[in-house]
Amino acid sequence: MEGKTKIVENYGDYVILNFKDDITAGDGEKHSILAGKGSICAEITAIAMKYLNSKGIYTQFLDFEKPNRIKAVPLKMFPIEVVARLKKAGSFIRRYGGDEGEEIKEPLVEFFIKDDTKHDPMVCDEHLVLFGLCTKEQVKEIKNITKKIALELKNFFEEIGFDLWDMKFEYGLDRNGKVCLGDEISPDTLRLRKTKEIFDKDVYRKDLGNPLEKYREVLNACKSLNLL
Amino acid sequence: MEGKTKIVENYGDYVILNFKDDITAGDGEKHSILAGKGSICAEITAIAMKYLNSKGIYTQFLDFEKPNRIKAVPLKMFPIEVVARLKKAGSFIRRYGGDEGEEIKEPLVEFFIKDDTKHDPMVCDEHLVLFGLCTKEQVKEIKNITKKIALELKNFFEEIGFDLWDMKFEYGLDRNGKVCLGDEISPDTLRLRKTKEIFDKDVYRKDLGNPLEKYREVLNACKSLNLL
Repeated sequence: MEGKTKIVENYGDYVILNFKDDITAGDGEKHSILAGKGSICAEITAIAMKYLNSKGIYTQFLDFEKPNRIKAVPLKMFPIEVVARLKKAGSFIRRYGGDEGEEIKEPLVEFFIKDDTKHDPMVCDEHLVLFGLCTKEQVKEIKNITKKIALELKNFFEEIGFDLWDMKFEYGLDRNGKVCLGDEISPDTLRLRKTKEIFDKDVYRKDLGNPLEKYREVLNACKSLNLL
Repeated sequence: MEGKTKIVENYGDYVILNFKDDITAGDGEKHSILAGKGSICAEITAIAMKYLNSKGIYTQFLDFEKPNRIKAVPLKMFPIEVVARLKKAGSFIRRYGGDEGEEIKEPLVEFFIKDDTKHDPMVCDEHLVLFGLCTKEQVKEIKNITKKIALELKNFFEEIGFDLWDMKFEYGLDRNGKVCLGDEISPDTLRLRKTKEIFDKDVYRKDLGNPLEKYREVLNACKSLNLL
């Protein structure tokens, strides 16, 4: 199965996530290939998920296979994006106003349906249940896990010198019906800053230079923790 | 205090809502004056709110003063619109797709911030608390009351031959801090249908003829119940 930035190979008991060198933005309207991006995002994902596993959070990560593959728990993914916000940015400001980087007291969790043709519309808990995408209990669980992960990742990145503003997660159900964090954790799916300096996909979205230089800096900082 | 469709006069212990003949759509970009509209919407509001009062729901309505005035409980309004949907239509379909008139099993409650410059963005429970617009308890109470009102109004309009698709409410706090239904209940704020025939503001939004003829038919049906 091939997505915009990953190819998933199914081997029964496990899957292999192949991270591609593709980068996209604007509901897939902007698209580039950056040689080496796949391996950078795969390794950052591996380190961040291994860290979360060590904190008792259930992620899809099983093993990292250099340069760009992750061995992972097979999941039936929810077709939703789960965003946690610690500071205001991006679509939040477009919707509600406010200042870039303004603090949000508690992690704010937002849900979006993955549907580029409808521009990933935001939904509330009840919509997810109405559309048959999650049960009420799953929504509650995903929201609770997301808040916990948001705070763990905030600490993780703080330790290596980055300020985590917001993040996008995707979840799935494993064979036992347990909610599990899947997909990736990388500068493609996080907003990472050092004061005003940008280390995430906004470099690409806003044409601010070569994203990979920034992504590599994030990877090197992650590697300094020697977690893999 | 003057709004788009009402002038509120404050007399201390009570307020008078003067319903204007103005009709607006598209965040106020479309605007007309329809002589007699104010009195029609005031009287429908009076009948519907009196009906809700009789069902144990706390509304702002105290008395109807012909032709276009309602004596009402003074409220500090929440700056939000609360929508309850029984069938799919309007912005719901623009956001999520689906067919006009498709049934929604349970009343779906949606919140929007009243802000024409931002096109009344949708918010979830947590946003309302984050923005300091409601407490968590108030959100829960408003949602519960709204579901109850939606079902009561569905019955009310069914009895007089109309199919209620969706509705927009505004709430406020009375002097004791109690949540109370305010504003209006009229074809300006409801989607009312008879199979394919439209009896609400969509007649105006979509330029389908003279809205007042339809509004008057709704009023006459409401009056047949002899509630005022």
